Formats: sequence, structure tokens, C-alpha cells
Amino acid sequence: MSNEFILNFTPTGMIPTKDMTPHVPISVSEIVEDVHQASEIGITMVHLHARDETTGVPTYKKEIYAQIVEGIRKYAPELVICLSLSGRNFSEIEFRSDPLLLEGDLKPDMGSLTLSSLNFNKTASVNSPDTVMALASIMKEKGIIPELEAFDIGMINYAKYLEKKKLIEPPYYFNLLFGNIACSQANLLHSGVMINDLPQDSLWSLAGIGNEQLKMNSLSLAFGGGVRVGIEDNIWYDSKRTILAKNSELLKRIHVIADANERTLMSPKDFRVKMNLAKGFGEYGRAFQSN
Amino acid sequence: MSNEFILNFTPTGMIPTKDMTPHVPISVSEIVEDVHQASEIGITMVHLHARDETTGVPTYKKEIYAQIVEGIRKYAPELVICLSLSGRNFSEIEFRSDPLLLEGDLKPDMGSLTLSSLNFNKTASVNSPDTVMALASIMKEKGIIPELEAFDIGMINYAKYLEKKKLIEPPYYFNLLFGNIACSQANLLHSGVMINDLPQDSLWSLAGIGNEQLKMNSLSLAFGGGVRVGIEDNIWYDSKRTILAKNSELLKRIHVIADANERTLMSPKDFRVKMNLAKGFGEYGRAFQSN
Repeated sequence: MSNEFILNFTPTGMIPTKDMTPHVPISVSEIVEDVHQASEIGITMVHLHARDETTGVPTYKKEIYAQIVEGIRKYAPELVICLSLSGRNFSEIEFRSDPLLLEGDLKPDMGSLTLSSLNFNKTASVNSPDTVMALASIMKEKGIIPELEAFDIGMINYAKYLEKKKLIEPPYYFNLLFGNIACSQANLLHSGVMINDLPQDSLWSLAGIGNEQLKMNSLSLAFGGGVRVGIEDNIWYDSKRTILAKNSELLKRIHVIADANERTLMSPKDFRVKMNLAKGFGEYGRAFQSN
Repeated sequence: MSNEFILNFTPTGMIPTKDMTPHVPISVSEIVEDVHQASEIGITMVHLHARDETTGVPTYKKEIYAQIVEGIRKYAPELVICLSLSGRNFSEIEFRSDPLLLEGDLKPDMGSLTLSSLNFNKTASVNSPDTVMALASIMKEKGIIPELEAFDIGMINYAKYLEKKKLIEPPYYFNLLFGNIACSQANLLHSGVMINDLPQDSLWSLAGIGNEQLKMNSLSLAFGGGVRVGIEDNIWYDSKRTILAKNSELLKRIHVIADANERTLMSPKDFRVKMNLAKGFGEYGRAFQSN
């Protein structure tokens, strides 16, 4: 339990389209602009998905991630940047690890690591043991910290297995995600068990899908955890689904709840210290380059 | 909670080989003989996996399942027979549904239905939403009851979704399986949450992988549930792994624990009544043929 809370901003994801909501940032400049604005409101880290600029379809290509990272670091050199290595649309390791090849000023601080295979509502997301271990191993070699993503209780056990195999090492950062149809649900028993099961020396944020987002974020702020929030997880601002969310409004509401709960934002700088991350870029001397 | 307990016998599975243990039944005649013996010791149902007779490799082929079903029904016409539709080695729906094509005296009572994708220790078992729904739909059309298999808490939520979609209907039978590396673990919190989450009108058995088998079976007998037991889940008889298990010995130990817990075996006949299954074969007039 900590007074400082992690705010993990998820602006885009793989599912929302401009047809669904005009507020989802798709192009490089839209994503950079949303993150810039978020950074002024106050966030600790950003979880990025890239899209093909013309089709809007999710892409693993490091060239697009490179443009986003470059754009963000101009405004927010310390912000912790996590790139998605999701297997939802492409399960091959060579595609998924592509963003990990970025170097120097473009190197990501973190990469997402879903800890097992699972079903979303329409599709399977295949993350075979070999793939999970290969991604963990590449990240370890490159000094990129995994954002451990657990959609059900067994995935936390798998993190402990990776720890035993020395493929990951503490301190850890977990996203615990609730409300997918074939995964853990947004209730107190499921979240209580998952938080209880985390390895020692873990920082964590709670996420909820759709209407569950606000519920899980609020619970986490009350109970000492962090928050993953953004249009990736819910395109609506209100539970009646009458107002399409803007990322900035979602973030401002988190700050209102956090203030009322006597929680203060963990700065990117403090998060970097806690996670043994390099100090950041620009004024901090491009510490990654000496890795 | 019921005084009568379901004993679900899993003699073979997909993993054990003759090199690992001489006691695993692989050929049709070995499987039939093990089930015959089990039926005399006392079981409610059997969960069958077929193997290729020459290679020992798992097969989905209905021709091999047909021989096993025929052999078992000669000795045990009432025994509830469940055929595996596992996606562990073959995920295509046309392969997995092959055993559901058996008709008349060879028609299975039940088919296994894993409720989501998951990881085993070495491989992903891909059960996409489309595949799960297609298998449920074929079983519903044919009057074959699904054996609902849940490896983690989210899979029970998916069963509730299938219920809402009218692809399954109560009464339900669940296997809750514990101890796979990326799934729910063999502890009281995980099993407590899963049992608590079951839909109304559910019968259930607990299973554990490896050394967890005895623990979960024993827990279930103490708390009113059923038991899934056999060499499929653990090739060892003792926790120190010095004695290779025989299926008959595993079953006898369950009866010892059940007796001491004042539990009595649910007969295949009683289970058929509870699950609205046809009355069975042979002396019961081959009720399935009139379906």
C-alpha cells in the first residue's frame, strides 16, 4: 500500500475505431497529442498501441512506434513508455518482439507481457509458454522491464514460475485486468484473490473493461493500488453509455477520486527509481544509451 | 452439497506414455479392461481419451472411440461415458467434433468442453470462442451433455455466457481442475472462489494435477463435491513419487476416503436421472436410439 499511485494511461488499444468514437487517437500525431495533454494533467506511464495510419488497423511495426516514442519524448522526457507486445492480432514472436528492437532515444522503458493464452469475447489471444518466455528473455537481455498483464488468477502463478526460471526479477509491475468474458470478473473476490497472490515486491494497477473500468479504478485508489485508464478499455464516460469518453476527461476524473482518497500521483521519476529504470531522456542524459 | 458423490474416472489422458508408466491403458483393450475393473470397484462416469494403437499418440478418431465405447457398454451398460473433445493437440472443429458423430449404441453420453483458451506447461490449448460455441451447439443438437471444464475462474463466467446464449442449459456438470502452471492453483482460495461462482443447479468434481490430485479429491469429498481421478492427472500413487499408480488403486483410495467421510457413490443410474440423460444401454432399451 502506498500513498503515491501509478497512473497508467492507455489511450488507444486495438479495438476502438473512429467509427466507434471520434475521440480515440489513431494516428501518430493524435496519439502524441493525447499523451502530451495527459502528461500535463498528470500520468506516471503510458501503454501504447500503434495503428496503421491509413487503415487504422493495429500494427506491430517498430517504425510507427518509433515515431510515437520520439514525439512523446520531446514533450515528456521522463514519462515511462510501455509498448504493447500483444498477441491478440499476431502471435508470431518475430512480429511481437519488433518494438523491442528500438534503440537509443527510441528504446521503450517497458514492454507488455501477457502471461498466458486467454479468450477475449470474439477471439483467442494465444501467448504460448514458449512465446511468453522468449519475450521475457529478450526484454531481460535488453534491459526493458516487462509490464506483467494478468487476466486471471493462474497468470500470476505463471509470473512466479518465470521468476523461478530467472526470466523476470523484482521489483515487478502488474496490470490486473477484470471484466473480460472468459477471464476474472470485476468483483471483490476475484480482485482480492489476485492482489493477494502477487509476488513480493510488486506494484500493481487495476483495469476494468467497459463499465467495469471506473469501478476497478476507484477500488484501486481506495485500496492503495494504481490505475490503468483510457479509451482502450472503455469508450464511454458514463455508465449509461450516453457520453463518449475523451482521454483527458477520464484522466481528470481519476485525479478527482485520487484527491478525495488522499492519494497523490507517483511521478514518472519516482516510478523509475522504484522499478530500477534508467532516469529517462533529454535532460537526464539519455541514460539508456550507456546500457 | 450431496451425500452421494460423483466419481469421474480418467484412466488415460493425452500425456502419460508406457515409458512413463506401464500402468497407463493405451490400447482399446487396455482401456476397456481398466474401465471394466473400475466399474466393479465403483465409478459414476468415465472421461475417455483415445490413442493411436501403434504410436500411442492421442487421436480424435471416432472409429477408435467407437471400439472403446462398444467394449465398455458390454460390461457396464449404464456407465456414463464422456469422450474428450480436447483441443490440446488438434484445435480444428472438424477433428474435435468427430467423436460426437457416433450414433445409436455408440453415441457418447457426454463430451468434454473446455471453456476457454489456456496454457499448459509446454503448450497453448486453443479453444477460441467460436470453437467452444460450435462444440456446445453440436452437443445441444445431438442431445449430448457437455462436461464443462474450468481451469481458471474466468471459465465459469464463460459458462454463464453460454447459458445466456442458450447454448447450454441446466443441470450442469463441471470439472474444476487445479494445479496447472498458468491456471488456478490447488489452494482453498482458488477452489473456494470457483465453487462459489458456479451457476445454480451445478454438479461438480474437483481435479488436481500431479501431487495436487489427492489433495483436491480429498477436499471435495469433505465438502460435498465429486472427484475426478486417474492416471491422466497423476502417474504417481504417493506424494514422494516412489510408487507408480495403478488406476484401480487410485479408485480404491477414493472409496476409503469417501467411506470415512460418510459419502456414498452416486450410481451411473442416479447421475443419469440428475443430468436428464437417457437411461443407458442394453437392458435399458437403448433409449438413445429414439432421440
